Amino acid sequence: MVSNLDKICEKINSDKFSKFMGIQLLELREGYSKMAMTVTENMLNFHNMAHGGAIFALADAAFAAASNSHGQTSVALCMNINYRSPANKGMRLVAECFEESLGKRTALYRIEVRSDDGKLIALSQGTVYRKDEELV
Amino acid sequence: MVSNLDKICEKINSDKFSKFMGIQLLELREGYSKMAMTVTENMLNFHNMAHGGAIFALADAAFAAASNSHGQTSVALCMNINYRSPANKGMRLVAECFEESLGKRTALYRIEVRSDDGKLIALSQGTVYRKDEELV
Amino acid sequence: MVSNLDKICEKINSDKFSKFMGIQLLELREGYSKMAMTVTENMLNFHNMAHGGAIFALADAAFAAASNSHGQTSVALCMNINYRSPANKGMRLVAECFEESLGKRTALYRIEVRSDDGKLIALSQGTVYRKDEELV
Amino acid sequence: MVSNLDKICEKINSDKFSKFMGIQLLELREGYSKMAMTVTENMLNFHNMAHGGAIFALADAAFAAASNSHGQTSVALCMNINYRSPANKGMRLVAECFEESLGKRTALYRIEVRSDDGKLIALSQGTVYRKDEELV
Repeated sequence: MVSNLDKICEKINSDKFSKFMGIQLLELREGYSKMAMTVTENMLNFHNMAHGGAIFALADAAFAAASNSHGQTSVALCMNINYRSPANKGMRLVAECFEESLGKRTALYRIEVRSDDGKLIALSQGTVYRKDEELV
Repeated sequence: MVSNLDKICEKINSDKFSKFMGIQLLELREGYSKMAMTVTENMLNFHNMAHGGAIFALADAAFAAASNSHGQTSVALCMNINYRSPANKGMRLVAECFEESLGKRTALYRIEVRSDDGKLIALSQGTVYRKDEELV
Repeated sequence: MVSNLDKICEKINSDKFSKFMGIQLLELREGYSKMAMTVTENMLNFHNMAHGGAIFALADAAFAAASNSHGQTSVALCMNINYRSPANKGMRLVAECFEESLGKRTALYRIEVRSDDGKLIALSQGTVYRKDEELV
Repeated sequence: MVSNLDKICEKINSDKFSKFMGIQLLELREGYSKMAMTVTENMLNFHNMAHGGAIFALADAAFAAASNSHGQTSVALCMNINYRSPANKGMRLVAECFEESLGKRTALYRIEVRSDDGKLIALSQGTVYRKDEELV
């Protein structure tokens, strides 16, 4: 039998932008997700470091996964990102998203992006609006 | 003769992630930039709308262009994004970045992402740290 | 006859924290507010400048006024503030709040805090959740 | 002998706005602070709940204490706040500030504001600019 979380995983894995960016879902639980991405040549900015948009894409993918993990369709309202350390080509980045607070209509998440060796690359907080729709 | 702004334009146009995302620089002045991107199939999320990360990528590219337009290397410290309206496949998005405040060490920008017909898709503010390095 | 906006003004003027901080409502229209506050000795931080919390209080008061100006009870979900210039004792600060986007359930605002002579002290963006309740 | 941290504590305790708001420093270590404030009648907004500005004041006081705890003068650049639960008159709020990342020029903090019984009231992230000045 396929559990609801399995169906949600499948839904999250259907994300085309994540595929395009090489973002992989490593783990999904209710209110938590873990995702990884390797910085490719395509993701470099004009300073030759990982583009802030590429780092954010990983953080946002983890945010979307965790916030939709309860099976209720959730959409991002606001998100911030603090960049703490540059990421280079070839670096494998891991994003973990933690649920800070779950309300009926809104919920708040923390997203950490770290390099393979645990260095903090970027840190985000994001709030979603939770719709009256089931995800799957 | 090639002006400094031309050299900065060239530098900004060397951005690989922007190329990967189909982001085009439309206009660059000191403290201002305008960029465009069309939402492709590759940029859709699992709700089949433009991924927040793709929209942010456009905003961030405009932010990087405007904040580096003075020729002093600038790197993002913090940025927020507020999502106001979903964007669909095929939609052409335009981002404009305005300088709100320019300091010696830091500067603040506003980035608007709008659809072709002027609808507000997302709104950002971002602060950069200005290094003691010339960009070109 | 008392208009609805008059009643909303009265409600906003009943705010005790604004009174405590000496914050005055100068102008209120649907989706817009203007408020002022003078930096007193009580508002200084340990650097002897206006405390970030005091500056934010003014911004937040303007945000609350503008976001409740339609007569629908609105509560802040997320807000950011960027500090751009210090404020000294005796300085009169003016905050203006502009509606960037009004949705059914959420709305987005921009708040500028300036000194009397127009210098940008701080800049904020904030998103409210709009409840199914009338304010007055 | 008076340690440097004692002198920093004394400096932080000289904060006039914190005194005005009844904010108390409970604990200070390098990169960490804990502060408390009781919601008084003066801190209520026009919804008769604790004003967002009053809650932010506590968070900001903790942020200032922790970010200046190394003895290097630090000033806030950007800060966000997410409001998760209302606070009532008489409620005692505790803010804890944790250092997420310490750089030479900038540093990032997380600030939690909770009620006495541990409920999350608000959550913030803030980045400071670290000046070439000693605090004491």
